[in-house]
Amino acid sequence: MMQLDDLDRAILRLLKKDARLTISEIAEELGRPESTIHFRIKKLIERGVIDHYTILLGPELRPKKTALVILQVETPIIEDFLERYVNHIMRTLSMLPNVLFVAKSGKDTVIALLGDETEEKLNAFIEENIKTLPTLKSVNVYPLDDVKKGEELVGFLVEV
Amino acid sequence: MMQLDDLDRAILRLLKKDARLTISEIAEELGRPESTIHFRIKKLIERGVIDHYTILLGPELRPKKTALVILQVETPIIEDFLERYVNHIMRTLSMLPNVLFVAKSGKDTVIALLGDETEEKLNAFIEENIKTLPTLKSVNVYPLDDVKKGEELVGFLVEV
Repeated sequence: MMQLDDLDRAILRLLKKDARLTISEIAEELGRPESTIHFRIKKLIERGVIDHYTILLGPELRPKKTALVILQVETPIIEDFLERYVNHIMRTLSMLPNVLFVAKSGKDTVIALLGDETEEKLNAFIEENIKTLPTLKSVNVYPLDDVKKGEELVGFLVEV
Repeated sequence: MMQLDDLDRAILRLLKKDARLTISEIAEELGRPESTIHFRIKKLIERGVIDHYTILLGPELRPKKTALVILQVETPIIEDFLERYVNHIMRTLSMLPNVLFVAKSGKDTVIALLGDETEEKLNAFIEENIKTLPTLKSVNVYPLDDVKKGEELVGFLVEV
């Protein structure tokens, strides 16, 4: 693990807020020479601390309603099939544009973050595309009503 | 809702992958004049379709182990206190650096995404900082073992 000092962290924090800041703007903000800032950013990129530069999409393109679903997959008679069932469900979910995030938890649980324009559309999507998936034992739906931390995550995950 | 055409979407997709691309690189990639690309990006920023430019942090700074927790809050005898309990828990969680995301679901449920360097540290954090929160009725922990879609989300949410 690379050692990051306060200057590295200060640079990363500024770039997270606005990655279009120029070297000289960052230098001025942090009261350091431009050559130092230039060198530090170069190193942060080379070492992969900065993975890449990207854009965050604004509210207009973000789904207005999101929900987390927790899917428990039925354990089949032939237990070896469980992994196949789970993988099939994860693959299917991943291909749907309304599905922003898919992960496996333990052997038999799939967690997904869903989004749509309205509550009605989101519920219809869950009824038609999620609850109808084969081999499910249970589906728990948690609408995200009020996000306190990490709200912008949807603008990061949404596809264009 | 602003209408986005294919060119807007193509520009957004390129910038999501690498926001350091120059106007002339995007123009060449998409086979359009630089003036067109310049104008489109200007409009996308003005209208807030591009919220801001940012960096994605690489694997080194991302917690290696993540888990989703679903906290159900006990309904107090004086029901009006439920909202206060829930808000208190959300505020407390939001202040912890290992907590990447916090949202409310329904009246009595709080959902949080947690991360730490190792499974042991993450479990210790859950035992010491989550399960000890007052007024909780139940805590369900879902370790995220294999992320199939949206994997980079942790690099977006992690604080520096």
